[in-house]
Amino acid sequence: MLDVNERGLRSMTIHPVILCGGKGSRLWPLSRQSMPKQFIPLWSDKTCFQETVTRVRDSAFADPVIVTSHDYRFIVGQQLSELGVSATILLEPEGRNSGPAIAAAAAWLLERDPDSVMAVLAADHRIDDHDGFRQAIFAAAGAAESGSLVVFGIKPDAPATGYGYVKPGDPIDGTVCHVESFVEKPDRKTASDYIQKGYLWNSGNFLLRADTVLDEYRASDPQTVAAVEEAVRLAENDLDFTVLQSDPYCRAKPQSIDYAVMEKTRAAAVVPVSYAWSDVGNWQTLWELSDKSEAGNLTRGPVDLIDTHNSYIDSHADRLTAVLGLDDIVVINTQDAVLVADRSRANEVGDMVKLMAASGREQALNHRRFDRPWGWYETLDLADRYQVKRVVVYPGGRLSLQKHFHRSEHWVVVRGSAIATVDDTVKLLREGESIYIPLGGIHRLENQGKIDLEIIEVQTGSYLGEDDIVRLDDVYGRIKPS
Amino acid sequence: MLDVNERGLRSMTIHPVILCGGKGSRLWPLSRQSMPKQFIPLWSDKTCFQETVTRVRDSAFADPVIVTSHDYRFIVGQQLSELGVSATILLEPEGRNSGPAIAAAAAWLLERDPDSVMAVLAADHRIDDHDGFRQAIFAAAGAAESGSLVVFGIKPDAPATGYGYVKPGDPIDGTVCHVESFVEKPDRKTASDYIQKGYLWNSGNFLLRADTVLDEYRASDPQTVAAVEEAVRLAENDLDFTVLQSDPYCRAKPQSIDYAVMEKTRAAAVVPVSYAWSDVGNWQTLWELSDKSEAGNLTRGPVDLIDTHNSYIDSHADRLTAVLGLDDIVVINTQDAVLVADRSRANEVGDMVKLMAASGREQALNHRRFDRPWGWYETLDLADRYQVKRVVVYPGGRLSLQKHFHRSEHWVVVRGSAIATVDDTVKLLREGESIYIPLGGIHRLENQGKIDLEIIEVQTGSYLGEDDIVRLDDVYGRIKPS
Repeated sequence: MLDVNERGLRSMTIHPVILCGGKGSRLWPLSRQSMPKQFIPLWSDKTCFQETVTRVRDSAFADPVIVTSHDYRFIVGQQLSELGVSATILLEPEGRNSGPAIAAAAAWLLERDPDSVMAVLAADHRIDDHDGFRQAIFAAAGAAESGSLVVFGIKPDAPATGYGYVKPGDPIDGTVCHVESFVEKPDRKTASDYIQKGYLWNSGNFLLRADTVLDEYRASDPQTVAAVEEAVRLAENDLDFTVLQSDPYCRAKPQSIDYAVMEKTRAAAVVPVSYAWSDVGNWQTLWELSDKSEAGNLTRGPVDLIDTHNSYIDSHADRLTAVLGLDDIVVINTQDAVLVADRSRANEVGDMVKLMAASGREQALNHRRFDRPWGWYETLDLADRYQVKRVVVYPGGRLSLQKHFHRSEHWVVVRGSAIATVDDTVKLLREGESIYIPLGGIHRLENQGKIDLEIIEVQTGSYLGEDDIVRLDDVYGRIKPS
Repeated sequence: MLDVNERGLRSMTIHPVILCGGKGSRLWPLSRQSMPKQFIPLWSDKTCFQETVTRVRDSAFADPVIVTSHDYRFIVGQQLSELGVSATILLEPEGRNSGPAIAAAAAWLLERDPDSVMAVLAADHRIDDHDGFRQAIFAAAGAAESGSLVVFGIKPDAPATGYGYVKPGDPIDGTVCHVESFVEKPDRKTASDYIQKGYLWNSGNFLLRADTVLDEYRASDPQTVAAVEEAVRLAENDLDFTVLQSDPYCRAKPQSIDYAVMEKTRAAAVVPVSYAWSDVGNWQTLWELSDKSEAGNLTRGPVDLIDTHNSYIDSHADRLTAVLGLDDIVVINTQDAVLVADRSRANEVGDMVKLMAASGREQALNHRRFDRPWGWYETLDLADRYQVKRVVVYPGGRLSLQKHFHRSEHWVVVRGSAIATVDDTVKLLREGESIYIPLGGIHRLENQGKIDLEIIEVQTGSYLGEDDIVRLDDVYGRIKPS
C-alpha cells in the first residue's frame, strides 16, 4: 500500500467525511426508510457504510467525521463499534442535502485544524479496489492541498445514463486536471458522445480543503454558510454525538454540493480514476456489478431456479424463493415483503414505494426489526391481544426504567444473561429462566455480560402499541418518547 | 332446489364418496405434501374438501364416506367438525390410486345397504353451481340405479389439453348416454376436433351402484377386489376412523378407476352437464376460472401493482407483494416460501417441487404449521439453542402426557385457558399466566374451555427436535411416535 510520504508529498493527514443521511428507497424491500441502504450489507458481510469506513482505515487518514441524521444515530454508533472505529458523529436535525452537510463537517474540522483536507465520501457507493481508491486520493492530495476542489472522475466502461459527467480541462498536477464543465445525466447517444470526448463520470466523492470549500460556498450562498457555522459553533455533545444546533441549521438552503459549489467555482478539478465504481442506485446496478452464474443469474440465500436467466434473486431470513421460466427479473424476498420486478425497470422501485407508503403499507417504510441504542427488537407474532417479540440487548446495553398501563409481559432468557428489575427486586436471569412483569410494574432489562442477551418477550393486554410506555430513567437520554 | 322425488324418481338415498388422499404438488407453495390442495381454501373461505362436502348436504344424500390417507386423518376430522358434519372416514394404509379407494367405499357401503348408489367425488374440484351439480346427479340417478356407471361429462368451453375426453353414444335415459369411448388428453388441434364432434370432458366424478362397480372391477381384476373386500371386512375402528386392514389393502393393484373399470366396462355412461367445472390442476387453471380485474389480474391479500397485467398474485400471512412491470406471471407469497413463475408454465410447478425436495428443502413438502389431533402448532422462531412456537389447542383437545430429555419449556397462555399438568401439580392457567416445565418434567396441556386455547411455548435446550418426546399416555392412540 502506498503512503502519502512514499509519494513524496509532505506529511499530511486526510479527514474522511462520510455522508450517510440518505433515505433512498430504490433498494426496497431490503432498504427502507428506517434502515436505508448504506446501513445494510449488500455485497459483503459488512454494510455499505462499514465498507466505506474500512476503505479509509490507514495511517494517512484521521478518524472519520460522520454526518448523519438524528434517526440513524444509534445505527451509526453500533456499526462503528462493530468495527472498533472511533469517529466524530455530527447529527443533522434534518436533512438539507449534501451542501450543508459538507459545510458542517468543514466548519467543525476548521475549528480543530485550519489546514484540514477532507475526503468527502458517500456511504453507499461500491468500490472494491481499496488500494486503487487510496492511490487516487494520494494522486489528488497535492492539488487539493493547494486549493483545488477535486472530484473523483470515473473512467466510464459503458455509456451510462444514470450518472452526471465531468469534462476534464488543462492539467494541474500529475493526473489532476481543471474541470472544464459538469454536465447532467445524458441520454444514451449523448453519453456515447461524451465517452468519445474523454468525459468522466461524476462520482460525487471529493478531496478538498475545508477552508477552500467553505470560502467557495460562501461566495455563492453566504447565508447558508453563516447558518451552518452557527449550528456548528452552538453544537452540543449528547452521549457520543455532536448535535448541530437546530434553528440555524434549518435555515441552510437545501442544495447539493454540486449545485452550491462545484458547478460555480473556478477551483473545480478532477482526478481520473479507473477502479470499478457504482452508486448502487438500484437492483439493476447491483446486478450489473456482481459476478453471475453462467445463466446470468445473481442469487443470494435459498433460491431454486428452472429455466431462468439474467435475473437477480435474493432470499432473506431463511425464506425460499423458486423461480420458473422467467428472464430478466428481480425478486427480493424479505421477511415481510416481496418485490418482483422487470429488471430493466428497477429505477421505478422508488415510485412503487411511494405508492405503497401512500396506501399506508407499514412495510413501505419500516422493517420488523427496530434498532435502539441498547440493541434491537423484532415482532415474531402480533395478534389482537398478545404480541411476541425477540429482544436483543448488546453487552453493556440497558433499557430505560419503564412501565406500561395496558400490558403485562413475560421475559424468557434464551441466550446470555439478564439483570431484570421488577419493582423492588433485581434478579439475575440465566438461559431458560423467566420473569413476569405485571401491568403497571416498574421494570428494566440490562445486559452486564460479554455476549448479546436474547430474550423472548410475550406481551398480553388490551393495547400493545409502542407508545404505551412511561420512561422513568434512561441512560440514552430518551425520557421524552423517541 | 330439486329433490329426487320431485323428479318423479322413487325415493332413493345417494351416498357421497369423497376421495381425498391426493398429495398433488402443482399448487405449491400453498399446497404441500403435508397439507395438499383439497384441505386449503382456494377460492372461498372453505377448503376445497369442505366445499365438496357442502355440495352434497341435502336431504337426498346420506352422510358422506370419506376415503383418505392415515396422514390426513386429523385434518379431515377437524374440517368435518368445523362444518358440523358426521361422516364415515375410511383410512387407506397407503395410497393405491382411485380404483381401490372407490372399491373400498363400495364394499363398505354394500355391507350396510345392498342397493347403495354412490356419488364419487374428487375433493379438489371446483364447481360453484351447487344446484346445477345436484340436478346433474338427479338426472343420472335413474340410469345409475339401473346399472350404468355414469360419469359426469362437462360441456367444454375451450379446447383444453389438460383433460381426458368422453365420446357420448346412444341415449339411455333422459340426457344420459352410453359412452362410445374414453380418449386421453389430446393436443390442441385434436381437442378442437373433439369439441366439434360433441365430446365432453371426463370430470372424474361418477354416479354408480356399489354392487355394479365392484362386479365390473372384479371382472377385470378379481385379485384387487378380493384384497380390498378383505381389507374392509377386517377394518378396525380407531377413534372416529375406520382403518382398512393394511396387509390385504396393500395387495390391491394401484390403478385409476378409469383404467381399472370405466374404459373396460360396457356399462359406462355419461351425463352431459354445463356447469362451470375445473380440476384446479394448477395456478393457471385457478386464474382462468376466477374473476379478474380490468387489467386481467387476480390478487389475494396485500398486493400492490404497477403496470402489471394478466397475472395471479397471492399474498398470505400478512406478507406484502409488490409487482412492477410484469405480465402473465404467477406470484404465490407464503410465510416461508415464494413461487414466481411464467403463468403459461404453471403445469411445471410439480417438477419444481421435485427439484426442491431432492435438494432437501424443508419447504418443498411441509408447512411451518403442523396439524395434530388436538389442534396445531407452528414455529415462530428457531435458533441454535431455543425455539418459539405458537400452540393452538381446540376445545376438548388434550396433548399426550409427555417428557423431554433435552429441553425445558415455558408456556405462556395468550388466549383461552389451560389445564397444565407438571409432575404432581395440575394448574388452571388464565390469559397472561405462565408455567415452567423443567427438563425431564412430566407434563400435559389440555383445553377444557369453549374457545381455542393459544399458548406461546419457549423451548431452551441443547436439542430441540420433535423426536425428543416420550409419550406416557395419549387419548389419540399415539403412544408410538406418529
